[in-house]
Amino acid sequence: MTGQIAPQYQDIEAALARIAGGVHQTPVMQSHLLNEHAGAEVFFKCEHLQRVGAFKARGALNAVLSLSDEEAARGVATHSSGNHGAALAMAASQRGIPAHIVMPSNAPQVKKDAVAAYGGLIIECEPTQQARAAGLELVLEHTGANAVHPFMDSRVIAGQGTVAMELLQQVAELDVIAVPVGGGGLLAGTAIAAKHINPKIEVIAVEPEGADDAFRSFGLGELQGNASVNTIADGLRTSLGELNFDIIRKHVDTIVTVPDALIIEAMKLMWTRTKQVVEPSGVVSFAGVLEHPERFRGRRAGVVITGGNVDLDALPW
Amino acid sequence: MTGQIAPQYQDIEAALARIAGGVHQTPVMQSHLLNEHAGAEVFFKCEHLQRVGAFKARGALNAVLSLSDEEAARGVATHSSGNHGAALAMAASQRGIPAHIVMPSNAPQVKKDAVAAYGGLIIECEPTQQARAAGLELVLEHTGANAVHPFMDSRVIAGQGTVAMELLQQVAELDVIAVPVGGGGLLAGTAIAAKHINPKIEVIAVEPEGADDAFRSFGLGELQGNASVNTIADGLRTSLGELNFDIIRKHVDTIVTVPDALIIEAMKLMWTRTKQVVEPSGVVSFAGVLEHPERFRGRRAGVVITGGNVDLDALPW
Repeated sequence: MTGQIAPQYQDIEAALARIAGGVHQTPVMQSHLLNEHAGAEVFFKCEHLQRVGAFKARGALNAVLSLSDEEAARGVATHSSGNHGAALAMAASQRGIPAHIVMPSNAPQVKKDAVAAYGGLIIECEPTQQARAAGLELVLEHTGANAVHPFMDSRVIAGQGTVAMELLQQVAELDVIAVPVGGGGLLAGTAIAAKHINPKIEVIAVEPEGADDAFRSFGLGELQGNASVNTIADGLRTSLGELNFDIIRKHVDTIVTVPDALIIEAMKLMWTRTKQVVEPSGVVSFAGVLEHPERFRGRRAGVVITGGNVDLDALPW
Repeated sequence: MTGQIAPQYQDIEAALARIAGGVHQTPVMQSHLLNEHAGAEVFFKCEHLQRVGAFKARGALNAVLSLSDEEAARGVATHSSGNHGAALAMAASQRGIPAHIVMPSNAPQVKKDAVAAYGGLIIECEPTQQARAAGLELVLEHTGANAVHPFMDSRVIAGQGTVAMELLQQVAELDVIAVPVGGGGLLAGTAIAAKHINPKIEVIAVEPEGADDAFRSFGLGELQGNASVNTIADGLRTSLGELNFDIIRKHVDTIVTVPDALIIEAMKLMWTRTKQVVEPSGVVSFAGVLEHPERFRGRRAGVVITGGNVDLDALPW
């Protein structure tokens, strides 16, 4: 199956060239106050300012632009309750092809609106993993569309890896990169890119305590699931993919966890100090810097802020 | 009295050079979605990313750096419940001189904290205009400090005028600039700078309906007060200064008003679409574009976003 082989650094380089016109080169921000607070020199890579408000635009667009014309004509499909659905719809609209997005009936209205705004075709299903998978199967059967998984896809991983490539072009001599982990697409891409460019860079993954399957899998050397999930970081509730875990075991230095209370604190610090609207999942990396200061003290740290799609009517404080 | 003469364009040029090392050159942002929404090409000048989270840093620093060494040694003083107090404390700390800030006892804790964080000396008073003025008089008597008024001061007006100078260096061929008006410091500085650089640029001031003294004064050609004030835009509740009104009458094209409901809508649009935390007073200019689309349609519009200091625990929705 397409996309189930780990991407190489060259695939990430190719992805960056491929998606260049369709996504933003996001800025890097600094804050004196937050540097003092963290005891490190923090460089925030601002993917909340990316198209669709999240880094997911990169992987989705790379997948869509990697299709042959013949494949593309049949459209793309996925199931998603979050940013990947909107990202795939955006990417498909750039290529002028249909995007079928299977969404659970309880998905937030704001997420449905985002998919619809990009011309995505929404297929509603029951809010269970089984119903989502079955819904997607049905769509694929009827349309012949290309499935684009949110993270278990080498084209998607390569696309997400462009975040780190860009960051390392923007900031010289980073000592460490902090990046959140959910399904592991961003983390896998980041690790491949960063370690190729500079093998001395430490790659630290940060995961919410209430969905710590990657932390446990990494410690045991064997893929673990989540019996239950309980975190405010809704984008990181997914479990690590197998393909992603293989890459992560090879290239990532450490995985640490953070409690939800600190995720909320990090979020408020970003909002008040940098005036940036970032979502809970989006600041988990920065929460990791605050929770584990000994790993970052006095170092030049790239901190990937992954998204900024928040329901302003349901803030966590 | 120092500072009661209208500044010239040359004073704004001098201010920009004087404050260059101590304040940020803030970025200009664009949003395709908001351009479509507004029907204009909008260039947001991001003063919420300024030091102390507001353009007030510019005027305060220009005033402090304009003092002779002998004057400076006696420190500076003002009364303020808002951003000017923090800005003056920040400016004074840069020159290593004391800042005495008279604050009403009901000023938000977050504002007091900001003043204290910059080493400002807080003198608490009863929350009335009389008590504030009397408190400041007492401080001036005892310390010999230099009073720096938040807007009726030519050094402050010149400092605020650097926002427009910078914007016009960053963006070519603007047709119109939208800027909020409260006391009129920013508006006066903007109008002097913009009209000198390009007399064809239209300068449109925007004021909350619930504090529309500038709108009425401009219409009648005579300075009017506010019998009562009722707006969410707390930074614009002040009445227009006399010095400022003289400048505004001469250089400003139009003053329009906006209802609070639209200020809140503009705020939510900025938060969700651009991921920027801006305060109610900070988006009044953009609300003006939404309320009066016929004035902006199809034009290149500079829209000054003035500040981002919001109490996250008391949002207006």
